[in-house]
Amino acid sequence: MNNRKRISRPTLPQKRLIIGRKPLIEALQTNNPIEKIYFQQGAIGPEVGLIRKLAKEQHINISQVPDVRLSKMTPHNHQGVVAIAALIPYQNIEDIINQRFDQGINPLIVLLDGVTDIRNLGAIARSAHCFGAHALLIPSSFNAGITEDAVKTSAGALEHIPVCRTPSVETAIDVLKMHGIKIVVTDISGTDSLQTIKTSEPMAIVIGSEDKGVGNYAIKNADYLVKIDMQDDFNSLNASVSAGIVLHHVYSL
Amino acid sequence: MNNRKRISRPTLPQKRLIIGRKPLIEALQTNNPIEKIYFQQGAIGPEVGLIRKLAKEQHINISQVPDVRLSKMTPHNHQGVVAIAALIPYQNIEDIINQRFDQGINPLIVLLDGVTDIRNLGAIARSAHCFGAHALLIPSSFNAGITEDAVKTSAGALEHIPVCRTPSVETAIDVLKMHGIKIVVTDISGTDSLQTIKTSEPMAIVIGSEDKGVGNYAIKNADYLVKIDMQDDFNSLNASVSAGIVLHHVYSL
Repeated sequence: MNNRKRISRPTLPQKRLIIGRKPLIEALQTNNPIEKIYFQQGAIGPEVGLIRKLAKEQHINISQVPDVRLSKMTPHNHQGVVAIAALIPYQNIEDIINQRFDQGINPLIVLLDGVTDIRNLGAIARSAHCFGAHALLIPSSFNAGITEDAVKTSAGALEHIPVCRTPSVETAIDVLKMHGIKIVVTDISGTDSLQTIKTSEPMAIVIGSEDKGVGNYAIKNADYLVKIDMQDDFNSLNASVSAGIVLHHVYSL
Repeated sequence: MNNRKRISRPTLPQKRLIIGRKPLIEALQTNNPIEKIYFQQGAIGPEVGLIRKLAKEQHINISQVPDVRLSKMTPHNHQGVVAIAALIPYQNIEDIINQRFDQGINPLIVLLDGVTDIRNLGAIARSAHCFGAHALLIPSSFNAGITEDAVKTSAGALEHIPVCRTPSVETAIDVLKMHGIKIVVTDISGTDSLQTIKTSEPMAIVIGSEDKGVGNYAIKNADYLVKIDMQDDFNSLNASVSAGIVLHHVYSL
């Protein structure tokens, strides 16, 4: 007898699944929000190509999985593809930026760079919404996705603040800079104090992961490289606390 | 066959258990730090009375449990009492306050009022230590105790910042006020902005629970009843984020 513990995956309600190629293409073409797409390893054909193209345009995360994984997700004929419907509608970051500029408002964006912890995501979404951020920008490599747990730990904030996807942190930073948005990075290598940010400007606050902090691309492209003043011997604020302090400062300007 | 899932409790390493009346009395009398005491329901006798008296003096949480619970904790003869050794040494809050005053430093204390989430405790300990608080004051009703998970989520901060216990939030506030320490409470009912706190003073920051906020006693006794400025329609910062913002402000004075 095999005594290894079986780790059971939480089962998704069937209504959140989009099963098979044609239903998924229809969903993608009618802009029904998709959280994630699972392809059977080796799946090919013109429909697969079309799904990949549409998914790329919408910055949807794609995973390759063995057939058995798909069969566990659904008893129906999945034709090598199952997708999960998104819990929230994703929006276009450039639309949001342009709308704010049109309204004469400085856009304030929160960009996640490596945050993987659902609870940190929830707490960051709450702070972002409380402190008036206009969008939360999430790389499509954020594998966890916006799950029910994420929405729950956000105390509903993820249903209030617009959420946008980006293929990568690098692309996001390029797009933001192209729109004249200043990149604010908090890092222990920071040389600016928070008080260096004195006036309201178009800004994106980049929030790194708990273990690795923000990536090199964000640091290299930072307009403000901030170090939050603290006792020198212990440089370890929780990522969502650090984000909250920066957002509160910017909101108070 | 009973198909209900059995929830297994994590097993504590035996070395952290103090088993039986005499060993526990000795531990209490020699100030070996104790996290929690489990009495068998109905346990009586002079030694039980002495243990209760010593535990009360040291603000140690006591639970009454059925015999079967104690027997699951240890196969040894427990004589109706098992205690868990603490992972950190608890300190005396009044000693810490007096030491700081003697050094000409304004004490900065963080008092938990209803925080029950281990991860929030960890994040709060990190912020408290980063922003120079001199002690974390925890009511002995904090049932979770300082577990290995708590130490882990604090990224080690709980091993750096002095931790003190208090029988109750009410007692804590009375002791703090008696020492001339100002009580800073963050609540949605707050009337002061954070900027009202302008100069460094002896202060205790009271942090409430996620769901209920701070208790009435803290609100009634607050010298500063702070509402963090934010968008009015969504008043829901994570408890540790809110604590971090207040501590950062006080540290920056």
